[in-house]
Amino acid sequence: MTRDETTVLFANEAFYAAFAGGDLSAMGALWSATVAVSCIHPGRGILRGRDEVMASWRQILKEGGADIRAAEASVTVHGDCAVVTCFEVLGDGFLAATNLFVREGAGWKLTHHQAGPTSERPAALGPAQGPGGAPLQ
Amino acid sequence: MTRDETTVLFANEAFYAAFAGGDLSAMGALWSATVAVSCIHPGRGILRGRDEVMASWRQILKEGGADIRAAEASVTVHGDCAVVTCFEVLGDGFLAATNLFVREGAGWKLTHHQAGPTSERPAALGPAQGPGGAPLQ
Repeated sequence: MTRDETTVLFANEAFYAAFAGGDLSAMGALWSATVAVSCIHPGRGILRGRDEVMASWRQILKEGGADIRAAEASVTVHGDCAVVTCFEVLGDGFLAATNLFVREGAGWKLTHHQAGPTSERPAALGPAQGPGGAPLQ
Repeated sequence: MTRDETTVLFANEAFYAAFAGGDLSAMGALWSATVAVSCIHPGRGILRGRDEVMASWRQILKEGGADIRAAEASVTVHGDCAVVTCFEVLGDGFLAATNLFVREGAGWKLTHHQAGPTSERPAALGPAQGPGGAPLQ
């Protein structure tokens, strides 16, 4: 793995740490303040521009954090741009997500996020378990 | 609008034209064959690699095209990478989508696509109409 790939995956982890911790200040620092940003929350419309995107995070994080983490994150770097795809483990459920980062100085900043429902689950978590521990279909 | 922005939006239109027309050959030519690609279809898992992604399009397009088009597409170019966000008008419904392109030679190729359900609709289409023509809530 290249240094860029490692750094972007670290930024991706920092994004979910800010989300989980309800840390609006960290969330704001993770998103680019210099290039156009956009965000599509699950089931919602398309937010464009830092004002709209950060207003959505203020709303989402106002009650504190969420039981969320990334799983099976995979990164591809295209020059000064990098895309991460991952599952989001949200409580007992899962979402599939796209996170787009751009290189800014020595680091990488979020410029776009989309998450949506998924019928699949991270393979590393194994099959879903029924109440008695039996695998679900 | 810059030439890059125009060219990427044209590629985005070509993507939906191939989708609508059920044109698997055009779809294959639109996706990069040189860099890592990925795709998250609505409600589905994360497809990684050209083989998985193109297999999904073969499956989707095997019955022919779909009544689909893009609306309110917006592009941001980051060097050799460009992200388009848009609504997808799919029959009477809507999805929100992310399409990521990379510069290859004189053109731009798709490297990632995610679409998911959305509670919103393109503003240009006006409010939803009830059966009698009355606006829905």
